[in-house]
Amino acid sequence: MTEVIIAGIGQTQVGEHWDIGLRDLAFAAIQDAIKDSGGLKPGALFVGNMLAPNLSNQAHLGALIADYAGLTGIEAVTVEAAGASGGAALRQGYLAVKSGMVDVALVVGVEKFTDKVGAGVEAALSNTADADFEAVQGMTPAAQAALLMKRYMHEYQVPADGFAGFAVTAHANAVANPNAMFRKAIKAETYAKAEMVSDPLNMFDMAPNADGAAALVLTRRELLPPNQPNPPVKIAGSAAASDTLALHDRKDMLFFDTAQLSAGKAMKQANVILDDIDLFEYYDVFSIYAALQLEAVGFAVKGKGWKLAAEGEIGLKGKIPCATMGGMKARGFAGGAAGVYQAVDAVTQLRGRAEANQIPNAKTALIQSLGGPASTAVCHVLQRAE
Amino acid sequence: MTEVIIAGIGQTQVGEHWDIGLRDLAFAAIQDAIKDSGGLKPGALFVGNMLAPNLSNQAHLGALIADYAGLTGIEAVTVEAAGASGGAALRQGYLAVKSGMVDVALVVGVEKFTDKVGAGVEAALSNTADADFEAVQGMTPAAQAALLMKRYMHEYQVPADGFAGFAVTAHANAVANPNAMFRKAIKAETYAKAEMVSDPLNMFDMAPNADGAAALVLTRRELLPPNQPNPPVKIAGSAAASDTLALHDRKDMLFFDTAQLSAGKAMKQANVILDDIDLFEYYDVFSIYAALQLEAVGFAVKGKGWKLAAEGEIGLKGKIPCATMGGMKARGFAGGAAGVYQAVDAVTQLRGRAEANQIPNAKTALIQSLGGPASTAVCHVLQRAE
Repeated sequence: MTEVIIAGIGQTQVGEHWDIGLRDLAFAAIQDAIKDSGGLKPGALFVGNMLAPNLSNQAHLGALIADYAGLTGIEAVTVEAAGASGGAALRQGYLAVKSGMVDVALVVGVEKFTDKVGAGVEAALSNTADADFEAVQGMTPAAQAALLMKRYMHEYQVPADGFAGFAVTAHANAVANPNAMFRKAIKAETYAKAEMVSDPLNMFDMAPNADGAAALVLTRRELLPPNQPNPPVKIAGSAAASDTLALHDRKDMLFFDTAQLSAGKAMKQANVILDDIDLFEYYDVFSIYAALQLEAVGFAVKGKGWKLAAEGEIGLKGKIPCATMGGMKARGFAGGAAGVYQAVDAVTQLRGRAEANQIPNAKTALIQSLGGPASTAVCHVLQRAE
Repeated sequence: MTEVIIAGIGQTQVGEHWDIGLRDLAFAAIQDAIKDSGGLKPGALFVGNMLAPNLSNQAHLGALIADYAGLTGIEAVTVEAAGASGGAALRQGYLAVKSGMVDVALVVGVEKFTDKVGAGVEAALSNTADADFEAVQGMTPAAQAALLMKRYMHEYQVPADGFAGFAVTAHANAVANPNAMFRKAIKAETYAKAEMVSDPLNMFDMAPNADGAAALVLTRRELLPPNQPNPPVKIAGSAAASDTLALHDRKDMLFFDTAQLSAGKAMKQANVILDDIDLFEYYDVFSIYAALQLEAVGFAVKGKGWKLAAEGEIGLKGKIPCATMGGMKARGFAGGAAGVYQAVDAVTQLRGRAEANQIPNAKTALIQSLGGPASTAVCHVLQRAE
C-alpha cells in the first residue's frame, strides 16, 4: 500500500501584503516547503485558489506560479472548490502521488484579497454561492452564515454570547503563532461588545479576509531521502463530498452532511475513531460553521457544538483542541490557502514543533476545509508516521 | 497495471445557448455520458472550466453541477488551466481512477460565454495571460497570437494565405458533425477575404467563443459492467507540462516546449511513436497555435507546420488527420469544455462511430489541449482497447 508523506511545509504570514503580489506570496511558501522537505524536486504543482480571476484578474495560476517558483516545465494546475480550494488541492496532490504517476507533488494555496478593495471583495466572495438563486438576491456569504446562525440560536436556545468561545480560543492560540494576523488574546466581553455585521453575526464571528500562501511537499514514503530533517507525517485518510450550494435546497440546513460524510470516509480509511483524534483543524471562517462542523463530525450532538467552545473544550487542554495555531479567525482567512494552512498547522503539531501551543504527544490530526456552508467538504487524517 | 477506460461520452451542441444556463449545459452532457457508459455511477466529478467566475459570476462549480446533475454528495472539484482546463480535468480524473481511490470518475468541461457580452469577454480571456506584464498592457489572447503569427510568417516566409488550410480543413470536417457550431465548408478564397482581427490574424485564424459542455465517464477496466454498449477506449498515456505565461520570458517563442514535452511523455507511457498516431486533435483556437503544435509534437519540422495544412495533409485522408470533427475552429471554442470535446471526438473515432468523418481503422489518437500560447499543455494518448 502506497504511503503518502507530507515531507515539507511552508507558509507566509497572513495579513495585508500590499507591497507584494500573488506570485510572490506563493513563491515564498513554496521555497520554504521545498527547503523544509530537504530539497525534494516536485514533478507536479497543484494550486489551491479560490478567487484570483475575480480578485486579481489572474487565472491560469498553475503555469504562472510554477514558472515564478523556478519550476518551469512541470505539470501545473489550479484546483477550486470555494473555501475548500486548499483542501481540494491537497487531495489532488494526494491522488497524484497515490496513483504512482507523480513522485513528488507540490501543493500551494494562495490568495490575495488586497488586490481588490471595497464591495468588490464581497461581490467576488458571493460568486462561491449559487449565482442564479442566492447571490443574485444580494446575499453575501456573511449574510448566509447569519441566517444559519439565527436559525441555530433559535432552535437550540443559544444565548447572545454563546459563540464567544470560538473567537476566544482562536485568538488565545494565535498569540504564539508568528504567522498569524491577530496575535492578541480577547475576552468574552470583547466578543459581546463587537460590532454587528449581520445580526446575530458580529465581527468576532467571522474571520478576516487576508493575503497569504501556504505550501506542502508530498511524496511516497520510499522516495524520502535519507536523513530527513523532520519526523515524517503521513496522509492516513483523504476524502471529499459535495452538497447543494443554496441553503433552501437542503433537507436540514443545520446539519453539515458533507462534513459528516467526508470525515467518516477519511477516518475509515485511516482506521481511526473520534477518540483517536488529538486535534481538529476546523473551518472557522464563521463561528456557526465551526459549531456545525463539530456536530457533523461527531464531537458534539446536534445543537451542542457551541457548548464545546463555551466550556473551553476546544482549547489546547480541552477534550478536542481546535484551531490550535489560531485557526482562520485569528490567523486570518487567506481563501484558497486556508485549507493548506490547516495542514501546515497539523503537521507542525504532529512533528511536535508547535512550541507553546503543542498538544502533548499528538499522533493523529483531523483537518477539514469547507466551501460555502459545507457545499464542499474536504477532509484529511494526518498521522505521525512511525 | 491499472487500465483506465473512457466508458462514456456526452456532449451538447456548441453555439450561443442564450436560453439555458451553465448548469443546464453541464447536466445535458453528463446525462448523455452516463447513459452512454451503460449507467455507471460516478464517485467523483472533475469540472473543467476556464472563466466562469468572470463570465458567469459563478465559482464553486463542482458542488453546483454535482447537485444539479442529481449526484449530490459525491466528491466534486473545478480544475482550471486556461484553455487547457478540459484536458486538465481529464488528467485529474485519470489520476483519481489510476490511484484506486475513485472507481468511476466523471469529467465535464463547460463554459458559457454568452453570460457576458462585449468587451467583458476579451477582458475575461485576458485573465489567462500574465496580468502584471501582459494583460495590463491591454494585450488580449488574439493580439498575442497575432504577434506570434507575424513573427512566424516573417521568419519562415509564409504567404498571406498560408494559414488558410487550417480553417478549410476544420470547416470541411464540421459539415457532418451535428454538434458543431458552423457546419459550412469554406474555400481558401473565403479565408483570403476574411475581416482582419489583429494583423495578420483574421476571422478565420481564430475559433469562435461559444457555449457548450462535454463529458466523459472514466473507470478501471475490471469495473466495466458486462455487455458494454460501446467498444472500450483506454487512456494509454497522460501527461502535462507548463511554461511561462508571458511570451517575452521564452527563449524561443516560436517553439511550444510544453507541447513537445507533454506529447513525448504521453507517447512514451503509451509506448507509441508518431507513426502510430491515426489522428491528432490539436488546439486550433488560433491557426498559429495549430501550426506550432504540429511542429512541437513532431509532425512537421520547425517552420513547416503550416505547409501540412496548405498541402491537405491534415485532412481526413491526409498523413495526419486533425480536427476530425471540425476542431475548435468550426465546432466552436467552448473554453473549459474544449479539451473534453477533443476526447469525445477521439473516442468517437476510435469506436468507429465517426460516420462520414471516420478515419479508417483508427486505433490510436493523440489529443492535446493548450492554455494560452502553450503555457500549459495537457496531452493524452487514447487507444482502442483490444
